[in-house]
Amino acid sequence: MIQPLPQPLSGVFAAVLTPQKPDLSPDYPAFVAHGKWLLAQGCHGLGILGTTGEANSFSVDERIRLMEAAVQGGIDPAKLMPGTGCCAITDTVALTKRAVALGAAGVLVLPPFYYKKISDAGLYRSFAELVDRVGDARLRVYIYHFPAMTGLETPIAVIARLREAYPGVFVGLKDSGGKWEHMEALLRAFPGFGLFAGTERYLLATLRAGGAGTISATTNVTGGAARQVFDAYLQGSTDVEAQQERLTAMRAAIEAYPLVAALKSIMADWSGRPAWKQVRPPLDLLDAAAEAKLLAAVGAAGLSLPKAA
Amino acid sequence: MIQPLPQPLSGVFAAVLTPQKPDLSPDYPAFVAHGKWLLAQGCHGLGILGTTGEANSFSVDERIRLMEAAVQGGIDPAKLMPGTGCCAITDTVALTKRAVALGAAGVLVLPPFYYKKISDAGLYRSFAELVDRVGDARLRVYIYHFPAMTGLETPIAVIARLREAYPGVFVGLKDSGGKWEHMEALLRAFPGFGLFAGTERYLLATLRAGGAGTISATTNVTGGAARQVFDAYLQGSTDVEAQQERLTAMRAAIEAYPLVAALKSIMADWSGRPAWKQVRPPLDLLDAAAEAKLLAAVGAAGLSLPKAA
Repeated sequence: MIQPLPQPLSGVFAAVLTPQKPDLSPDYPAFVAHGKWLLAQGCHGLGILGTTGEANSFSVDERIRLMEAAVQGGIDPAKLMPGTGCCAITDTVALTKRAVALGAAGVLVLPPFYYKKISDAGLYRSFAELVDRVGDARLRVYIYHFPAMTGLETPIAVIARLREAYPGVFVGLKDSGGKWEHMEALLRAFPGFGLFAGTERYLLATLRAGGAGTISATTNVTGGAARQVFDAYLQGSTDVEAQQERLTAMRAAIEAYPLVAALKSIMADWSGRPAWKQVRPPLDLLDAAAEAKLLAAVGAAGLSLPKAA
Repeated sequence: MIQPLPQPLSGVFAAVLTPQKPDLSPDYPAFVAHGKWLLAQGCHGLGILGTTGEANSFSVDERIRLMEAAVQGGIDPAKLMPGTGCCAITDTVALTKRAVALGAAGVLVLPPFYYKKISDAGLYRSFAELVDRVGDARLRVYIYHFPAMTGLETPIAVIARLREAYPGVFVGLKDSGGKWEHMEALLRAFPGFGLFAGTERYLLATLRAGGAGTISATTNVTGGAARQVFDAYLQGSTDVEAQQERLTAMRAAIEAYPLVAALKSIMADWSGRPAWKQVRPPLDLLDAAAEAKLLAAVGAAGLSLPKAA
């Protein structure tokens, strides 16, 4: 049995897409195959069932079956960081318990995101109830900070209080807020914190500031290039900045489009499998013109189907 | 068997609170008792499992059991408009199917609210998939417009397209946007539309503009007073504006506070049952000072425990 990755986790994680059948049910075998392919490209781990994975567009049962499919399909659970945060604490608890039981290295947890203007006490209580109800010493929580989707902030004071009340549990955070100053402030507040930038634009900056790496939608297709940046940084390569610039250009070619649809278009193109192009509502696919422009921009940024690993 | 209310529904609907036990599980008997009490106060119907009911803080199974408890507990399903809109279409379909099977007069449906900046096509597809998947001629959908919570708008063009594609299904909307101009625009666009204002502040204005009534959090405690306004309007009473002013003052006494917590404090005070004071995170109860101020303001507005009906 492979040992769990040391905590906090670090490296390049893909926010894994969820392939779907024409009836929009999860395509479990395609999901497992995509996860393995991402690891073969060089990703250190898999952030399954996040925003890019359309997690909140699936029912709890479907999300549990996707986690189970990954592990039963042969993906090392120590490389998995499933998203488990729902609006309902009971759902978050059910998903988190299953993730921990499956051996997942950590869970990525959105705050309950229906209500807005919630108090710091309410936010604290959301996460504290989760830990209390899961009641498992193996639980490692990465807070999922994504104000553009949740409408919620994640005050540093609340994180500090959680870390004090539950030592060793709140080991990191995925910062999808897009503000570098916020990521820096977190790393200053919590030395050794497992901070993952939500975009590989900030991969090198995050590593230099003592953070963990990136969990990004676009690493579904830039995973190999992002891994090169990570390794170049570790090796102290003089080339690392040029590599980060190249990676940033790849990201830039994609991020002008709705990400899930754009990434599914790229995967359909690369794999020759048009079945990739399914998303659950409220998401929408790219139209043919947008897709053609995207694919041209991706190619111009030097991004193409990697050779088999 | 009581006949279903004619469509679109109309009148004063309470956005029913969900009583909880100390472990935050639903208190089913207390929920049924509260629903019956609201009808006895004069509410025409019950908007169970909406924002005030903390619906999204409960799992699908808990929501289904709350609907079943209401009907099995003797509440006429023709007076129920359960909230069934979730982030996941599969959850929305499961809840809506159960609501229709139970005989609910209509369902109140949030758009899938995790993703933001969704396209009109994605929004349309969310509701169209629901109707297609439920596949039941009895389905009557009231769209739940609440941009402060969902971060989403509900363009009139999308509603028009849905009404054209599914005649007789999209019969109304609960407008919790708080903007009277928006409600007026909807009523101009769709004569006979079942428009419910999300606050009883606009009850008289809504009725005069041809709308249906109100579905409001605060009618958990102002239901009797709101019913008086409704009846006075129907009867052409010269007193109706004074009654609306009195009702608005009651609403104003409460709406400065977080509504769910405030309403549970009032119900605890009126019923002498402190067990009312439970909310699921991320919501939070009022502290003692805020509660005391609230209860004083409520009394000053002329709002007190109604005598048994």
